[in-house]
Amino acid sequence: MRFFTAGESHGPKLTAIIEGLPAQMTITSEMIDKQLKRRQGGYGRGRRMQIEKDLVEISAGVRHGKTLGSPVALTVTNDDWKHWTKVMGIEPLAEDMNPEDIKRQITRPRPGHADLVGGIKYSHRDLRNVLERSSARETTMRVAIGAVAMQLLKELDIQTIAHVTEIGGIVADRTTYENLSVEELREKVEASPVYCADDAAAEKMMQAIDEAKERGDTLGGVVEVVITGVPAGLGSYVHYDRKMDGKLAQAMMSINAFKGVEFGIGFEMAKRWGSEVHDEIAWSEERGYYRKSNRLGGLEGGMTTGMPIVVRGVMKPIPTLYKPLESVDIDTKEPFVATIERSDPCAVPAASVVAENVIATEIAKAIVEQYHSDTIGELAAQVNAMRAKAKEF
Amino acid sequence: MRFFTAGESHGPKLTAIIEGLPAQMTITSEMIDKQLKRRQGGYGRGRRMQIEKDLVEISAGVRHGKTLGSPVALTVTNDDWKHWTKVMGIEPLAEDMNPEDIKRQITRPRPGHADLVGGIKYSHRDLRNVLERSSARETTMRVAIGAVAMQLLKELDIQTIAHVTEIGGIVADRTTYENLSVEELREKVEASPVYCADDAAAEKMMQAIDEAKERGDTLGGVVEVVITGVPAGLGSYVHYDRKMDGKLAQAMMSINAFKGVEFGIGFEMAKRWGSEVHDEIAWSEERGYYRKSNRLGGLEGGMTTGMPIVVRGVMKPIPTLYKPLESVDIDTKEPFVATIERSDPCAVPAASVVAENVIATEIAKAIVEQYHSDTIGELAAQVNAMRAKAKEF
Amino acid sequence: MRFFTAGESHGPKLTAIIEGLPAQMTITSEMIDKQLKRRQGGYGRGRRMQIEKDLVEISAGVRHGKTLGSPVALTVTNDDWKHWTKVMGIEPLAEDMNPEDIKRQITRPRPGHADLVGGIKYSHRDLRNVLERSSARETTMRVAIGAVAMQLLKELDIQTIAHVTEIGGIVADRTTYENLSVEELREKVEASPVYCADDAAAEKMMQAIDEAKERGDTLGGVVEVVITGVPAGLGSYVHYDRKMDGKLAQAMMSINAFKGVEFGIGFEMAKRWGSEVHDEIAWSEERGYYRKSNRLGGLEGGMTTGMPIVVRGVMKPIPTLYKPLESVDIDTKEPFVATIERSDPCAVPAASVVAENVIATEIAKAIVEQYHSDTIGELAAQVNAMRAKAKEF
Amino acid sequence: MRFFTAGESHGPKLTAIIEGLPAQMTITSEMIDKQLKRRQGGYGRGRRMQIEKDLVEISAGVRHGKTLGSPVALTVTNDDWKHWTKVMGIEPLAEDMNPEDIKRQITRPRPGHADLVGGIKYSHRDLRNVLERSSARETTMRVAIGAVAMQLLKELDIQTIAHVTEIGGIVADRTTYENLSVEELREKVEASPVYCADDAAAEKMMQAIDEAKERGDTLGGVVEVVITGVPAGLGSYVHYDRKMDGKLAQAMMSINAFKGVEFGIGFEMAKRWGSEVHDEIAWSEERGYYRKSNRLGGLEGGMTTGMPIVVRGVMKPIPTLYKPLESVDIDTKEPFVATIERSDPCAVPAASVVAENVIATEIAKAIVEQYHSDTIGELAAQVNAMRAKAKEF
Repeated sequence: MRFFTAGESHGPKLTAIIEGLPAQMTITSEMIDKQLKRRQGGYGRGRRMQIEKDLVEISAGVRHGKTLGSPVALTVTNDDWKHWTKVMGIEPLAEDMNPEDIKRQITRPRPGHADLVGGIKYSHRDLRNVLERSSARETTMRVAIGAVAMQLLKELDIQTIAHVTEIGGIVADRTTYENLSVEELREKVEASPVYCADDAAAEKMMQAIDEAKERGDTLGGVVEVVITGVPAGLGSYVHYDRKMDGKLAQAMMSINAFKGVEFGIGFEMAKRWGSEVHDEIAWSEERGYYRKSNRLGGLEGGMTTGMPIVVRGVMKPIPTLYKPLESVDIDTKEPFVATIERSDPCAVPAASVVAENVIATEIAKAIVEQYHSDTIGELAAQVNAMRAKAKEF
Repeated sequence: MRFFTAGESHGPKLTAIIEGLPAQMTITSEMIDKQLKRRQGGYGRGRRMQIEKDLVEISAGVRHGKTLGSPVALTVTNDDWKHWTKVMGIEPLAEDMNPEDIKRQITRPRPGHADLVGGIKYSHRDLRNVLERSSARETTMRVAIGAVAMQLLKELDIQTIAHVTEIGGIVADRTTYENLSVEELREKVEASPVYCADDAAAEKMMQAIDEAKERGDTLGGVVEVVITGVPAGLGSYVHYDRKMDGKLAQAMMSINAFKGVEFGIGFEMAKRWGSEVHDEIAWSEERGYYRKSNRLGGLEGGMTTGMPIVVRGVMKPIPTLYKPLESVDIDTKEPFVATIERSDPCAVPAASVVAENVIATEIAKAIVEQYHSDTIGELAAQVNAMRAKAKEF
Repeated sequence: MRFFTAGESHGPKLTAIIEGLPAQMTITSEMIDKQLKRRQGGYGRGRRMQIEKDLVEISAGVRHGKTLGSPVALTVTNDDWKHWTKVMGIEPLAEDMNPEDIKRQITRPRPGHADLVGGIKYSHRDLRNVLERSSARETTMRVAIGAVAMQLLKELDIQTIAHVTEIGGIVADRTTYENLSVEELREKVEASPVYCADDAAAEKMMQAIDEAKERGDTLGGVVEVVITGVPAGLGSYVHYDRKMDGKLAQAMMSINAFKGVEFGIGFEMAKRWGSEVHDEIAWSEERGYYRKSNRLGGLEGGMTTGMPIVVRGVMKPIPTLYKPLESVDIDTKEPFVATIERSDPCAVPAASVVAENVIATEIAKAIVEQYHSDTIGELAAQVNAMRAKAKEF
Repeated sequence: MRFFTAGESHGPKLTAIIEGLPAQMTITSEMIDKQLKRRQGGYGRGRRMQIEKDLVEISAGVRHGKTLGSPVALTVTNDDWKHWTKVMGIEPLAEDMNPEDIKRQITRPRPGHADLVGGIKYSHRDLRNVLERSSARETTMRVAIGAVAMQLLKELDIQTIAHVTEIGGIVADRTTYENLSVEELREKVEASPVYCADDAAAEKMMQAIDEAKERGDTLGGVVEVVITGVPAGLGSYVHYDRKMDGKLAQAMMSINAFKGVEFGIGFEMAKRWGSEVHDEIAWSEERGYYRKSNRLGGLEGGMTTGMPIVVRGVMKPIPTLYKPLESVDIDTKEPFVATIERSDPCAVPAASVVAENVIATEIAKAIVEQYHSDTIGELAAQVNAMRAKAKEF
């Protein structure tokens, strides 16, 4: 399972191709749109999210709601494109047109964005050529792909959920969520404007977001993704590049603005005795092998253990602030204070949706690669066989 | 640049092949042995480290000290192999031999290790078949490969250093190291038994390690890798799988026992205002563009910025404890308390060496892939051209 | 440079994403449409080619006619889609619709097509689910991608041409084309309805095609692709999977209906003395090193030599015949004589266009991977540097 | 399943690492040595083949004759190394040594070899640095890897055989072998000094080789590899880079001196009516679906059909001739007639062994990737399930 995304933030449309999905799997645009909608929600989002009503079009690889085994193509049209046909036009400018008439050229790189280095790398003196692609708009297609992946996981009885555990230093109380089932957690998250399972913390998070908005500042946070039902033995200890945690870490870090990732109790492991970190192994007739705790987050030796996968990522605050940062104009080399294109004070709730989809994609990818996946039926049979093998070992 | 490692902990030898190195680069076994020796050091290591005297043999891809462009083969022989020829014999057992005479069969999986899941996955009922490969012994070859990568980086004026910033909850004071040059930091690290730049913290870390030893317990910690001189524009924002931070995260997570990774101020970003996270951009005739701070750790938009790369990883405490954890015998299904094969109370200092080498490898790999790398001379010229391009932009 | 294609023959549209193109390169839809038109021409094509008027839409990665460095998305809409919305509908069938009302279900696999094995593999009992993707319609996007690749090559002064050298046993006389420049060859090819440089042979080929049509039979043939200006040293002898001829062979064999590939004098080498096969090396102040002949087709040791690359592929006759072949209905297991969906007696001329584009793509891919390719300017400078290095060696 | 090879022709040893083999598979050095020995045989080989007695050492990934799932390391030591320790020394030359004292520097590139272009590419002015790796000595490790792959195939009831069908224009009569079983064909091949199943042709081939030797010339030829028992559906039509014939073509072309590849009746398809090319489909209770002929060589639509895979490659004559070709000294730029390092008049029989091993490797790789391959038992069960699925479709 491989995939590419394409598309600029204000271009005509976003496109994705997913190659290597099993045949006979159910996919509908409705499923994908549901995830796209979740991505556009969350407390702390600005205006554009309300304007955009992202809807996917499937144009290949699916017939009558079932995958064919051939590549799946997904498109999300930018409703706003009609206002950008000149600035973002695909074809060469007419010869009699003065390039300077094309407004919206950008020569002022924003700190914390790809603008400056992207301009240097690709020799773009109009930094719009960078930011159109480096924009978090691209995560739309990561979510669309993730929605397909989640459908695949669902057909394998694997469940995913993401929730916000910290915003601006306000940390959700672990005891409010750590014993919930995925369903219970999902219910809590869906009821919370900040997608946080701890109501008290959620309240404070919203206050912090409001304060950030007033200050013209922004806030980052931490999101946690939990995946249950993954069979033991996904990934491998035998070669460094087959370790499942490495792949999940790369996936999490590939989301715009994410700057760290941890599994289970994560960095807390640097503070505890070994005897308080590792998860004791038990066995019962009914459950087979299991761990008495899950501090390692469902991964040992680069492999899934069968326990829930728990992975967290930290998102930096959005770098576009009303309270501006100093930068330098690339033409004049004069200092200036950075422009504002958009102004969400906090995108952490929405980012939790992206993280869930991205991690789901990586898990689906690993399963499809590890098992025979010509059809979803054969794949499901093998995943079940793996579960039985683990239990009977 | 691609590489494979092979070898079991008590097998005859460890092997690595590195494919895709530029020609005309200097490599000697001495350089590699130096890194192997550093890996074997560090306060808190047990007996085996003193026994092993790892020395590399180069057997392909190098002639008269220079790379040929062809694959490089590295071998580290296990001195101890003579005691293991029967237990770990390669060829089939003689027909008249009773397999049960082969001692050291293992049916008791250790919590926190790959033992149980590895056994399930590969149908090994003798768990020795798992632990021989999942052992941190494999990091010997990661370091050998890293030593080659570091030599490549050195020829491009890129410098690397790793140090320990936390062990068992004792955190090095950032002010003791954050303004040091790589050389100064290296000097500090080399003088410290725990590879820590903060002398006071180092003292306490050693006490903690001593206490762990007495308790029969173990300690984890955090290591930081700093790389300076990397040109701007390594990696890219244009596609999720080309982001440099994603690749570095995967690399860090591929080290045995690492459970989290963060860049710059990392998880701290969830606690600050955006205006206190991002690095303002400045420009001077002399330096070209630079950042006034480096909280993002030298990466923006999935690309290197030209500022030092700062990445940290958390290592869990070694799961093999004298203070044992409960587990289950896979044959009898009876609970037991886990066996001890080895007993380093803390491997964090040594792991910092592994981390430095692994991160150096990933940086070298990205450079070799991004630039024309038939010869080291052409590679260096291009890296310098990139530096000039960034300055003149 | 990587790319995916998606789309079914009678689906709403075909899509491609190309990832990894240099920035600052010129691309217009006009350039691509020109190649698409060439693919639809050629003596011996049936009706559908006249109906389809393939036009590309670029929707990402290009702004004002220049590449951005970000992924490029290409779409070709199927004009015919309006007649297929029910049969090839993407969304699930309405619940009150009888699946059997969906006409055009196929249970009769055609010999020589993917139908039967594709059905088995992906568990499709309606073989339309196979043939919609296995159709040569997919080569439309291979050509669109190739048009982009050719534009890249053009900016590096590399030229490509394909011509037909055999159809139905009628072989073009080598002396009519072997000393022509690419331009001269192109002129000849463009003037020939069968894209063949030997006028006399072309005449006979057309007669053969006419005869095939009358007989209700089909003809295959051989196409030759010539690429000039490729610098020496593309590919490498150091590792089996870096050999350029291997990559070109895979590319050629990935075209529908191609069953063999050869370089230079190819299979003829099995018939000659070694002294009559190899190309002697000469040197002059003006040209640097060169070969006195080009029997090896521009490749030695898995690397380009700087001489023209000459590669040929054999295309089998189209398996869909009016003179039908026996097969078996997958539902009834009864024998039948295979259905005809379409009826071009010969697709070799069109396939030569596909071959040119596919080989151009592979050459462009190898260049982009071997050299630093952030921008087309840097890429061109390096390719020129390689040319100078070869001359001055 | 991935693999690297390393090693220079006169270096200390050749090394290979194979990553991704299933666990629980039988491997012994004896199996591999058997293939190595076959590679060293064949009429028309020169002296070195008698000197070398290649024996493999397995040093990782295998315990008591069974694979562990971890990477397998293979080594073949060069017996001759003791005579080359100075010329091919790994470590830098002692400072007091004059580099010119190192004999055997080569400045005269041989036509048809990688020498010249390799020197240019990697900036080697001693062309020994090229030819040590570009030498066909590397195929030793391709064969060692192939021996492991063949063992894997054997455990899946898949059989392979290669034979010589043409040398120096003498073509084996197809009727002498086309109806033989793999076992019968193997018996014939093993009895023939030129590995040819047609005794009369074999006789003439040997005469031609003798004549070539007398003339100081060389001969190429064609080898055919046949693989039976491969289940239908390996590879796929859905994406150009998943086509099985493309992969096999690349593999065949990656063998030193191979310049063309064809499947089934191959280039002959350009000469026949479509009705005489395609294989009609039949079905019986006993066999399931089958083809009445196998002109397409066991592949349709990029997938295996279940019929025997038939693939041929053409090998050019060895370019090192006593009857020398003109070339140019890279230092003086003076013309000369090329040096002779070795002098086999014909290596086609030996190359057939390499081809068999290389094709077996590619088939094994495709199977391991397509199916769940943690253990050989699970792999075999799935391959059998695929066979049953094909039959019952």
